[in-house]
Amino acid sequence: MGFTPQQLSDLEEIKQLKSRYCRATDLCDVAMLRALFTPDVTVDYRGGAYTAICRGVDEMLDFLLNAHHSEMITMHHAHLPDIAFTGPDSAEGTWYCEDFHISLDRREITMGCLIYRDRYVRRDGVWKISSTSYDRVWEAFEPLRDGIEITAHSLARAGLPRDQRRDIGHLLHWKDRTAA
Amino acid sequence: MGFTPQQLSDLEEIKQLKSRYCRATDLCDVAMLRALFTPDVTVDYRGGAYTAICRGVDEMLDFLLNAHHSEMITMHHAHLPDIAFTGPDSAEGTWYCEDFHISLDRREITMGCLIYRDRYVRRDGVWKISSTSYDRVWEAFEPLRDGIEITAHSLARAGLPRDQRRDIGHLLHWKDRTAA
Amino acid sequence: MGFTPQQLSDLEEIKQLKSRYCRATDLCDVAMLRALFTPDVTVDYRGGAYTAICRGVDEMLDFLLNAHHSEMITMHHAHLPDIAFTGPDSAEGTWYCEDFHISLDRREITMGCLIYRDRYVRRDGVWKISSTSYDRVWEAFEPLRDGIEITAHSLARAGLPRDQRRDIGHLLHWKDRTAA
Repeated sequence: MGFTPQQLSDLEEIKQLKSRYCRATDLCDVAMLRALFTPDVTVDYRGGAYTAICRGVDEMLDFLLNAHHSEMITMHHAHLPDIAFTGPDSAEGTWYCEDFHISLDRREITMGCLIYRDRYVRRDGVWKISSTSYDRVWEAFEPLRDGIEITAHSLARAGLPRDQRRDIGHLLHWKDRTAA
Repeated sequence: MGFTPQQLSDLEEIKQLKSRYCRATDLCDVAMLRALFTPDVTVDYRGGAYTAICRGVDEMLDFLLNAHHSEMITMHHAHLPDIAFTGPDSAEGTWYCEDFHISLDRREITMGCLIYRDRYVRRDGVWKISSTSYDRVWEAFEPLRDGIEITAHSLARAGLPRDQRRDIGHLLHWKDRTAA
Repeated sequence: MGFTPQQLSDLEEIKQLKSRYCRATDLCDVAMLRALFTPDVTVDYRGGAYTAICRGVDEMLDFLLNAHHSEMITMHHAHLPDIAFTGPDSAEGTWYCEDFHISLDRREITMGCLIYRDRYVRRDGVWKISSTSYDRVWEAFEPLRDGIEITAHSLARAGLPRDQRRDIGHLLHWKDRTAA
């Protein structure tokens, strides 16, 4: 039991990888996002009101950029990593994430928590996310309250404007919310 | 000063221990919870509107399962660990936690922050929580807002249903809130 | 690539430093705060509705204590550290922070996220913050909702009471919010 110094160093790099995933998603940093995944990454996000399924980094970027666009305010905070190695260059990680979204176009807040289950591999000396999935702990929607005033909003500049967005209905499936 | 490689490995295991405490509480994972504590664990949670005192793992599980039941939505996110060793197999840790609860039966939200102060011991090679306490940084209650729609709620399935709950009035003391 | 055991130990100490910054700010622990910074620390916080600029630890303490006073409820949770060494006794760190404030005197909530970019140096064997800055990911204000009841509030006791506060208009600049 216990971790070797090499594994402790690897753990730190894997944690940095997840840190960049969260920051780059909420800031729409496309170059940083692209560097985080293996080409064949698999993504299975099981929300309460939606599911997202992507195969490969191009689909993942399509999903991330079009779901977190210029009329979205988003926060992804992955916490409490619980990571185990499955080989010298592979690991599995569980994170407990809080997320919060304001959709300015739908005038709606989404909030909740989820459990990420990721796989990581080292390729050419760099740790990458080779698969990521999550299941919801809980999720709630609320109409955007009238009194809220937005005074900073980085995705307004960095996120995809309306005329550059692509339809991602093949990646992001919304359930009938009344059946949730 | 500084940490040895063994201590760094131990720190990672202690952080995983707290990670599992948070996840297992919010998911009502009884088997995972039971493995986290020494048999004689002491618990002293000093909320603003309540206090919880448990002696021993059975009381702690009684408290956790009956306080976070099937009509509760809960989030415990312990952050920013500050851990020091008090011996080769013992440590003390401070965490800064955000918690958020929706009580569907009382139709009330509780939110706030608290400082955990824990003690950890290694027993048979495995780190356990031997004592845990917290004091509130702040705490607030709010009636559940009408527009909130719950679209995922894992405790609805995993948490104790109403007819299986036990009275924990001997463990969880509610103060007169008007005096807080 | 990778971190040496010494660097891993240093990383843990730097993370503890940031942990204490967050806790000491929200608890108004002046002695703990003073120990965290180099005498010549530089501070550049770029909010949406304000900016804060401090030069030196005395200005920083003036800012922190007077901005987080006895009528404030505050939460600073720095997450997801991404730290790199720039020398044996120096490092740079990025953190993704969630903050939440209730101003009881202005009856207003501020919430949002920000990216800290810090520099750390080791002085006499102890890591210190030599510079810190942040940029907002997003920021929102909301009038304090009527139904919220505060049941714990540590800054009410520990924070500066009204008659001991100093004007910090030279450190904290509020923008015209309608122009944000």
